[in-house]
Amino acid sequence: MKLLDRFFAGDRAALSRVITLLENDRARRSDILDRLYPRSGKARRIGITGPPGSGKSTLADRLTARLLQHGRTVGIIAVDPTSPFTGGALLGDRLRMQGSWDDPRVFMRSLADRNHTGGLSEATPHAMTALDAFGTDVIIVETVGVGQSTLDVSDVSDTTVVLLTPESGDSIQAMKAGLMEIADVLVVNKSDREGADRFASELKMIVDMGRWEEGWKPSVLSASARDDTGIDDLYERLGAHGDYLAGEGRLQARRLRQGRSAIEKALAELWQGRLTALRESGDAMDRLSERVARRELTPLAAAREMMEEAAD
Amino acid sequence: MKLLDRFFAGDRAALSRVITLLENDRARRSDILDRLYPRSGKARRIGITGPPGSGKSTLADRLTARLLQHGRTVGIIAVDPTSPFTGGALLGDRLRMQGSWDDPRVFMRSLADRNHTGGLSEATPHAMTALDAFGTDVIIVETVGVGQSTLDVSDVSDTTVVLLTPESGDSIQAMKAGLMEIADVLVVNKSDREGADRFASELKMIVDMGRWEEGWKPSVLSASARDDTGIDDLYERLGAHGDYLAGEGRLQARRLRQGRSAIEKALAELWQGRLTALRESGDAMDRLSERVARRELTPLAAAREMMEEAAD
Repeated sequence: MKLLDRFFAGDRAALSRVITLLENDRARRSDILDRLYPRSGKARRIGITGPPGSGKSTLADRLTARLLQHGRTVGIIAVDPTSPFTGGALLGDRLRMQGSWDDPRVFMRSLADRNHTGGLSEATPHAMTALDAFGTDVIIVETVGVGQSTLDVSDVSDTTVVLLTPESGDSIQAMKAGLMEIADVLVVNKSDREGADRFASELKMIVDMGRWEEGWKPSVLSASARDDTGIDDLYERLGAHGDYLAGEGRLQARRLRQGRSAIEKALAELWQGRLTALRESGDAMDRLSERVARRELTPLAAAREMMEEAAD
Repeated sequence: MKLLDRFFAGDRAALSRVITLLENDRARRSDILDRLYPRSGKARRIGITGPPGSGKSTLADRLTARLLQHGRTVGIIAVDPTSPFTGGALLGDRLRMQGSWDDPRVFMRSLADRNHTGGLSEATPHAMTALDAFGTDVIIVETVGVGQSTLDVSDVSDTTVVLLTPESGDSIQAMKAGLMEIADVLVVNKSDREGADRFASELKMIVDMGRWEEGWKPSVLSASARDDTGIDDLYERLGAHGDYLAGEGRLQARRLRQGRSAIEKALAELWQGRLTALRESGDAMDRLSERVARRELTPLAAAREMMEEAAD
């Protein structure tokens, strides 16, 4: 039985293999996505972002437990810092995730942050497509930190949860990092720590001052993922945000934004690939460089010729 | 009289204006370069790079004085850090350049490092084309620091001078920064400082271990630009490198490399411009994002359609 047939028959090993291919095998990626993409689009997509050490993994674990209690299947994609030694993802964090690790209704995958963007791995949206097409109810994406990634977690999520801690810097820093803008729900984790209440009040003030889409203002919740407190509140708010999105084409609007971001990413990759191919074949580049060196052609005119060849 | 006519008649004010247009007026840049490019290619191009504080400006000043003594006209392009307040270049460093500032045979221009790459400004090669077409004998380009710029100083220079100081870190760091690879001449500046001799010996050892093009091994010179010592040695080595380049098509090879780098830069700009135009016109992107959101099309397939439209 072929890989994708096994995948569509619900074989978890096939899902795992498909994600590996999407992550590593650029040549087969496109064909696989052609098959998966039309079957995707049904899953609820929740992004969790926040500074390193804010407790994203633990929160994802707790949230997963709630989702399972409510009968959902869950896929978790975490982006882990790449080990400089192995080139693979550092799986240490994942060891914390004891609660749901063995549950057959949970599929967990770490992707390597090869480019060290601090945000999402390039393969993240592809892995999400796989989980989605596999029939997963809820997909949780967890960033490695607060990235300066061109691929923002809010570009792949229906709902973005921003996790902060009293230690993770003040609310002004959160604004600077652009976290306030993308948050649908704000969670102050480690709420038993000193300064947590003041920090939550500050965040609420900032939220109150902000201008938000009609019908939704980000809530500021307090939680302690480690102690499993505040998670029911989060679960409730995520439900409320889901209801909000369901109305007046709002989910459709987010999906449009996700589509646009995915196209831009694909465009950049495609272009990079063609340019690399042109460079490596070398003929055009050699010929044109020579003409530029002889001042017969400006670099811009040469680039225009290259563009035409690249477009073929 | 039109700007370019005045330029070709040797009017320095027109040269200055042309460089300003090349730096700031993207719309006119291409037409101006079409006129200037065929008249360029005769100047000797010398790049000076090194960490901040290594004395690049002072060295450029001293070298300029020597070049003037030998009857050459000199153009200096310095890349200055952008002021976060004015958006313009910080001209402080330039005030040091007292010696040749007023000489009509010297043209000095600071370009702003808008992208904070620490290397060269995007406009650098264009300004060099202008100086070259203006008939300048020697163009000296000075980086703002040791950049991680995609545009390397060695991509625009016939001869690259790497300036280091005993304080600027050890020789291992210089290797890591890729400075040893691009150096045609290495200068240990501030050679009166402690550790300068040991540092110069280390660099010589590294140079001796390296593999170099036949016929040229980078010299390691000691200098004190402030005290005007070692500059005659540098002048002599630059002359020797010029003679070396003159033989066996070596200058041609460097010019080919410069051409290639210029084409790649133009390609990236061209592509970015077309993409921006597509995004801003919006039609194609809106239509395709919608189809992607409806899962009728993968992002990659949509990107391929966009590519075709961008190529038109």
